[in-house]
Amino acid sequence: MVALRFDEFEDDTRAAIMLATYRALCKHGYANLTIQRIGDEFEMSKSLLYHHYEGKDEILLEFLEYLLSRLQTETPFDDGRTPGSRLTAIIDHLLPADPDRETVSFVRAMVELRAQAAYDPAYRAHFTRTDRFFRERFSNILEDGIDTGAFAPHDTERVASMLVTLVTGSMVERVTVDDPDTDAIRAAIDSYVETETGHTFSA
Amino acid sequence: MVALRFDEFEDDTRAAIMLATYRALCKHGYANLTIQRIGDEFEMSKSLLYHHYEGKDEILLEFLEYLLSRLQTETPFDDGRTPGSRLTAIIDHLLPADPDRETVSFVRAMVELRAQAAYDPAYRAHFTRTDRFFRERFSNILEDGIDTGAFAPHDTERVASMLVTLVTGSMVERVTVDDPDTDAIRAAIDSYVETETGHTFSA
Repeated sequence: MVALRFDEFEDDTRAAIMLATYRALCKHGYANLTIQRIGDEFEMSKSLLYHHYEGKDEILLEFLEYLLSRLQTETPFDDGRTPGSRLTAIIDHLLPADPDRETVSFVRAMVELRAQAAYDPAYRAHFTRTDRFFRERFSNILEDGIDTGAFAPHDTERVASMLVTLVTGSMVERVTVDDPDTDAIRAAIDSYVETETGHTFSA
Repeated sequence: MVALRFDEFEDDTRAAIMLATYRALCKHGYANLTIQRIGDEFEMSKSLLYHHYEGKDEILLEFLEYLLSRLQTETPFDDGRTPGSRLTAIIDHLLPADPDRETVSFVRAMVELRAQAAYDPAYRAHFTRTDRFFRERFSNILEDGIDTGAFAPHDTERVASMLVTLVTGSMVERVTVDDPDTDAIRAAIDSYVETETGHTFSA
């Protein structure tokens, strides 16, 4: 999951709050996050922030929905290119080969937020939607690949479901073990996709 | 990951502390856990507990090591049976088909503890060892299967690494999305193993 470039977007109050949330989350993680710390990253009047939200979870849930809606409308991996290049792009987006520090900080925070979903139904509802979004996106690409003859026939639902589970597991591993062998697991995922679909990822 | 039966083990002080930790963790999760709450589950003098440990993380890290050492010495899935039945047993152990409430509570807590590893090096060191243990165990079973002719030749390191990532991802999904399709992802994992090794899981 690559770091988000909020500066590309309209500079209204909501975008500024989302940017401040993103920065504070990367810097402090979930457990140590407070509205005050989001306020420290906010470039407008802090009273705007305190007036809008009851607590950090309300801001964070809005932030997660904002990320998902941006993925739904502005996906960098679904621009009419071939099914093969779209499949490569979505996996590269979720599991970048050489993540920078900001991206690693963001993945760390997302793993921590995902763990909140084990106890908090509002977070669980969000991650249910996120997983469904990626599963459907994978399915669509895989079906397009079969339809155009680019991919060998396979059970697209099953492969899409495996890819979502592999991405979740791989993201967790990346930030919760020492020296994760990021290249090896990505190579294993690519090999799986190749076996199922015949699609090869360029080196 | 099935619930642990501590009552099988020697009833010494350490085992009693580990049992109390397990019960408190299943009941309260990590964020809401306190030494006091572990003490509430402890059947011996609470001063023993307060005397031994500085804080909840010290107990929890010892608890995690205790679980790992028990897996290393008393694995329920490595008793000299065939490679095929050992592979089925280890995956059934990690991803049981119909987990009871206690098991779900335990998986929930383990996902929360794993997220601590994103920030805390002591937890990260533990989960590095846990993942390595399971990767080596999978590798050994897969190699035995190839040696005995039970499994088709395959890249055992790669498949073992995929299985660890799939188990991690699947455990996280089980407790962080609404109505996870546990059967579908398990069927997808089984299908992957069958493609790589020729091993079929009995229904």
